[in-house]
Amino acid sequence: MRKERIGVIGAGLCGTLLGIRLSQLGYRVDIWERRSDMRQSDVDAGRSINLALSSRGLSALDMIGLHSQILDDIIPMYGRRIHDVDGNTTLYKYSGREDEYINSVSRSGLNIELLNYADDIDGLNIHFSTQVDRVDLDNTSLYVRDGEDVFKHQYDIIFGADGAGSAVRRSIQKRSNQLRFDFSQKYLDTGYKELEIPAGEGGTWRIDRNALHIWPRDGHMMIALPNTDGSFTLTLFIRFEGEYSLEHIKDDEAVQAFFEQYYPDALAHMPTLIRDWHDNPTSSLGMIKCHPWLVNHTLLIGDAAHAIVPFYGQGMNCALEDCVVLDRLIAQHDHDWSTILPQYQSIRKPHTDAIADLAIDNFYEMRDATADPLFNKKRKLELRLETEYPDYYSKYGLVTFRPDLDYHQAMTLGRRQDDLLMDLAASIDDPKAANLSAIYDQVMALGRQ
Amino acid sequence: MRKERIGVIGAGLCGTLLGIRLSQLGYRVDIWERRSDMRQSDVDAGRSINLALSSRGLSALDMIGLHSQILDDIIPMYGRRIHDVDGNTTLYKYSGREDEYINSVSRSGLNIELLNYADDIDGLNIHFSTQVDRVDLDNTSLYVRDGEDVFKHQYDIIFGADGAGSAVRRSIQKRSNQLRFDFSQKYLDTGYKELEIPAGEGGTWRIDRNALHIWPRDGHMMIALPNTDGSFTLTLFIRFEGEYSLEHIKDDEAVQAFFEQYYPDALAHMPTLIRDWHDNPTSSLGMIKCHPWLVNHTLLIGDAAHAIVPFYGQGMNCALEDCVVLDRLIAQHDHDWSTILPQYQSIRKPHTDAIADLAIDNFYEMRDATADPLFNKKRKLELRLETEYPDYYSKYGLVTFRPDLDYHQAMTLGRRQDDLLMDLAASIDDPKAANLSAIYDQVMALGRQ
Repeated sequence: MRKERIGVIGAGLCGTLLGIRLSQLGYRVDIWERRSDMRQSDVDAGRSINLALSSRGLSALDMIGLHSQILDDIIPMYGRRIHDVDGNTTLYKYSGREDEYINSVSRSGLNIELLNYADDIDGLNIHFSTQVDRVDLDNTSLYVRDGEDVFKHQYDIIFGADGAGSAVRRSIQKRSNQLRFDFSQKYLDTGYKELEIPAGEGGTWRIDRNALHIWPRDGHMMIALPNTDGSFTLTLFIRFEGEYSLEHIKDDEAVQAFFEQYYPDALAHMPTLIRDWHDNPTSSLGMIKCHPWLVNHTLLIGDAAHAIVPFYGQGMNCALEDCVVLDRLIAQHDHDWSTILPQYQSIRKPHTDAIADLAIDNFYEMRDATADPLFNKKRKLELRLETEYPDYYSKYGLVTFRPDLDYHQAMTLGRRQDDLLMDLAASIDDPKAANLSAIYDQVMALGRQ
Repeated sequence: MRKERIGVIGAGLCGTLLGIRLSQLGYRVDIWERRSDMRQSDVDAGRSINLALSSRGLSALDMIGLHSQILDDIIPMYGRRIHDVDGNTTLYKYSGREDEYINSVSRSGLNIELLNYADDIDGLNIHFSTQVDRVDLDNTSLYVRDGEDVFKHQYDIIFGADGAGSAVRRSIQKRSNQLRFDFSQKYLDTGYKELEIPAGEGGTWRIDRNALHIWPRDGHMMIALPNTDGSFTLTLFIRFEGEYSLEHIKDDEAVQAFFEQYYPDALAHMPTLIRDWHDNPTSSLGMIKCHPWLVNHTLLIGDAAHAIVPFYGQGMNCALEDCVVLDRLIAQHDHDWSTILPQYQSIRKPHTDAIADLAIDNFYEMRDATADPLFNKKRKLELRLETEYPDYYSKYGLVTFRPDLDYHQAMTLGRRQDDLLMDLAASIDDPKAANLSAIYDQVMALGRQ
């Protein structure tokens, strides 16, 4: 056993993975989780939240040796299936390369896999239903409530992996002036509501199982990800106020009329729409950036440090990749934490800022740019490149399938490619007739700069 | 008496002025202040904090009828007196117009004036040493602690005027997701330390009394504002870390050597430097923006809604002007608060965002741009315009002396003027020989656009 004792707050995806990895490296680790053990209670209250697990998240699971074990519970999505208002659909593959796809995974299912895996790891203790009252940032200790009593636990390092509403971050924020703690929380004017396409007869899927379904509309949109039980979780993204907004879709007739007008092919598979609409909450979409993440020996990690909007499908992947970046630094600096922690902060911050900005960009791109003829010409050029040149990666491909590049590198190269392709699209009439090999050469030259 | 009961949290400059004005308009107002009555205790603990009171703040005092009464306690500053390293000084007047200057005022002195004035106002009650435990945003009520007991006070409208560290804002922040409360707090890498030039013999001023003194240096700077007792409050602005930073100025020898090298003429008047350096805290410089300010019938106002950095001398003036904008809306909408409060938020937010951004710009301008030859040429052109054309206002003049323009208008016009003058400066060799009347015509045309 290594001498440092490590406390992790939060047994979500990031905290559990981090605890497992640190224990594998020989540390004694306590994870403190406010909620009860999700394996003994139905945390989702009937709703199944699913997320897109892609290369960065898979690399993180690989790191702890979990990759193959969970493959049974995830559903590959090979492309975006776009639904128009008349119900016509087109599949746009994510990649011309066979092994590049994203995966629909149940958030709680993956968390349970991690918790089960953690059970067999030596040196790791997960304490459920335990409220951390206070973090003493100066002494790297936690005060944990147990009924009426509060117990102090002393650590060498504490990780705040307690999610977007992080209590550890709030402890830091209370000392904002002294720590010069930059903090920003920004919400979109758009919210989301989760709905459902239930399983078909015998647990079959009523629409294409192996795709991420998208219903792009003007000012709102819906997506669907498949679940292993045959159902799909639908998410409607729509403004809170104004034209085509939640404030105008309140009673049963309005809900029914809205879906009949904009999402008729989905509606045909949504027998529980009205009930779901009223039962399920409407949630907001916020982004959190902050700095510093590190105060003495306490470090924020995962969503506690950087919560992003879901439009790049990278929130979970980014939080899991945090642990990979940390792991690499532990090896590189031979467990010298006085170097590892500040290095982690300075190296990782630009990556997470990049994916946060990309996710916001993608929100506007999905909402506004799809109606732009120039953008559509550029998209056609890009599709041809993706189909005909296996070593070409679009910005989406760089972010999603190239964990060898960090998010900042992927963003920088991806944006350069986008700018070039937009310029080229503006100068040509027909993307189908354009000289693709010349374009390919120009684009690939960017990556070598 | 009007029927609405109004609660104000915070008896600082903004809260007290607001309470006075609302009482003058016929409302019953309670002000709740956490601290004790500053008239009965020495709140400044020996340090005198002074601020620059200019037209917008004076208009606010005028509004409640306080203008002439306080004129005895403020010291006019007619211009910036710039000190070079050799001790040479030059006065740059703020305006060619006689009645345009700014005023050095003691923060606590002005607050005491307002509290004394409030004593005679009917319908206004100020409760000192009273901690507001909680604001119920849904019911517009306050829970106030008195020893062991907590009492509920019900209002029609609550104003959170409790400053940059606002507890009312924290109540709102706890419901961030539901309210989509955008919040950003950002710190500069530069902090400040307050020092002193004590009064000369017989309460005289050791340096020019009627100026704001500036010692611009490369990467740090010092300013001085006069006090009525003959002393000056000095503020040194300097980075926390890096070259020329606080981390290198710790022991007595280093402090002495630093001032001998960079501020020798000030040092000659600073007998208490070493003691002040160790006794006085180093403070950070932060900016806070947030939205919404209004939640049901509770409104953030003053620094609680918008804390800015001090480099435009507008923090206090802006907080006081908030009350003028509100007052104008009360008259315009005939006390219809359901209109006044949302209107205030939508009208005032762009103004305060503008002054926040201007103050940040000025920090970089003061720190970096003064060494730029093009900027200095532009500054010379501007000085000629200010001297020779009484109706020309620089950006600083528009912000400082033109309360008839809101901050956003002042910023927009001021930036256009700056851009034009920079372009003109780039195209001429000698600002002294340039055709001023042609330049004047071009600049004034911007204001008529």
